[in-house]
Amino acid sequence: MNVNSGFQHQENCTNDRSFIKATGGGAYKFSELFKEKLGISLEKEDEMDCLVTGANFLLKAVNQEAFTYLNGSKEFVQIDHNDLYPYLLVNIGSGVSMIKVDGDGKFERVSGTSVGGGTFWGLGKLLTKSQSFDELLELSHRGDNRAIDTLVGDIYGGMDYLKIGLSSTTIASSFGKATSHNKELEDYKPEDISRSLLRMISNNIGQISYLNALRFGLKRIIFGGFFIRSHSYTMDTIAVAVHFWSKGEAKAMFLRHEGFLGALGAFMSYETHSLDDLVVNQVMPLPVNASLGTDTNYDPLEGDLNGTESIQCSVYRA
Amino acid sequence: MNVNSGFQHQENCTNDRSFIKATGGGAYKFSELFKEKLGISLEKEDEMDCLVTGANFLLKAVNQEAFTYLNGSKEFVQIDHNDLYPYLLVNIGSGVSMIKVDGDGKFERVSGTSVGGGTFWGLGKLLTKSQSFDELLELSHRGDNRAIDTLVGDIYGGMDYLKIGLSSTTIASSFGKATSHNKELEDYKPEDISRSLLRMISNNIGQISYLNALRFGLKRIIFGGFFIRSHSYTMDTIAVAVHFWSKGEAKAMFLRHEGFLGALGAFMSYETHSLDDLVVNQVMPLPVNASLGTDTNYDPLEGDLNGTESIQCSVYRA
Repeated sequence: MNVNSGFQHQENCTNDRSFIKATGGGAYKFSELFKEKLGISLEKEDEMDCLVTGANFLLKAVNQEAFTYLNGSKEFVQIDHNDLYPYLLVNIGSGVSMIKVDGDGKFERVSGTSVGGGTFWGLGKLLTKSQSFDELLELSHRGDNRAIDTLVGDIYGGMDYLKIGLSSTTIASSFGKATSHNKELEDYKPEDISRSLLRMISNNIGQISYLNALRFGLKRIIFGGFFIRSHSYTMDTIAVAVHFWSKGEAKAMFLRHEGFLGALGAFMSYETHSLDDLVVNQVMPLPVNASLGTDTNYDPLEGDLNGTESIQCSVYRA
Repeated sequence: MNVNSGFQHQENCTNDRSFIKATGGGAYKFSELFKEKLGISLEKEDEMDCLVTGANFLLKAVNQEAFTYLNGSKEFVQIDHNDLYPYLLVNIGSGVSMIKVDGDGKFERVSGTSVGGGTFWGLGKLLTKSQSFDELLELSHRGDNRAIDTLVGDIYGGMDYLKIGLSSTTIASSFGKATSHNKELEDYKPEDISRSLLRMISNNIGQISYLNALRFGLKRIIFGGFFIRSHSYTMDTIAVAVHFWSKGEAKAMFLRHEGFLGALGAFMSYETHSLDDLVVNQVMPLPVNASLGTDTNYDPLEGDLNGTESIQCSVYRA
């Protein structure tokens, strides 16, 4: 959930008729706060609509937007606009939505999973006492999941189980080693726990995404959402999962502006609703930090509402 | 992993030529221990072979073996032996194997997931300090996952998101509420954590199973393995997941002897290898408890090796 915003007003921000187009859970969660502190109404746009509109816009308008990622190597993909559809859009927020996109405004949410970014951050916070999503992600970078996951080799005396195509290093059971009777939570390194969690969740999302792409015969799987955040290990795990489950036939693709699909879509909805009135687009700094509570932790899954970053606005002159 | 055993010897159990057919990880893990303490060799049989052989045997030989489960109601399914294949066998041990079964000895492991019973017990042990798998499972019975999971209604101001078919009570993000900044692990009830874990894992297994059944056009999904252990809430969650993702088109089926597929298959492999020598089948008590270490915790995912239970043996007279 993030607040994705454009901004419209008549004369000034505190005018009763000021409103911001917003989408996602944040549009509900922060609605009262925006009204109370800034006098701005959040005008809710459908989340799936916005995600798809944002992704389509990026894929068509931005050069070098989509890329593949494998073994630390990023490769930009040039997509022919006439051959863009259909594709599977996988948006990883606190939960995960999988959307079959057939064209502009033509889409269906075909699947999803509750095991997403909120699960990583929620379980990770309980297990490691990390104070922020970024801290947890950073931890995973230094960890080794083999301390906690049971690998195929751990089960089969160090050997592969080649008959069914599993190498000794494949994870047989996520957190399987944590069943050990003589160890407690304190005996495991937070960085190993974080790494194991990240692999479990990324791998699971990659697998379910691939199975859905297969189901609908979709060549491309495009991953977006703030969970990824250009984090190389996350992208690598998702890419490896798609590669593994598809036996090399499918490739995961990522977007440079992955965290802003909904925001872009909400912004573009001004166009749909009142293009004639939209006369000026500009970036306008807003004192968000002072107005939106005391929470100083950066939590992308709850909306990027900290810091003094600007919110992209469309100034609306009636 | 469990040790699945039949037992063969010439004159007595400590004879050098005594051996037990065994399969799964336990056949590797406990191999030395059996040799050292009982003078018995574990003769390893292929795990997938054994699972399939065991399941096929049960489905054909045992009356009222398979049943569906929904809303607390068990309904036995009479399966026509001539219309048994193909089906998807989902064996949930510490990890999960998904096997497309086309006939006796005809099968392919088509998928699986590392998020299985080991994940439930491993994560559950770290988070709740439960001392046994059974204790953790029992906890889940009394818990309420809504204290920890983010539901669709939590995101959308108590409302459904009907446009994409999600009711307000659907889990949007497993453990999503645990991202709350002002709460630590100690602030959550162990029973709520256990329930949330069980739902997350059972739901995920149900979803991936259904997607694989769909992929291969399999009408039946049969769940086995010691994770389920006739636990009604586990079966209910898996059944609901299959119902939800298939929009009511597929039904999850369970087996009465779910935890013994591999053991049965290993036992039946005597038949394959040396039927002529197999002259007596009997149940023979073995002093397992005294011989296999000091671990008094019951851990079905590591094999049921505690207590004074008997191991089914085939006495082999050369």
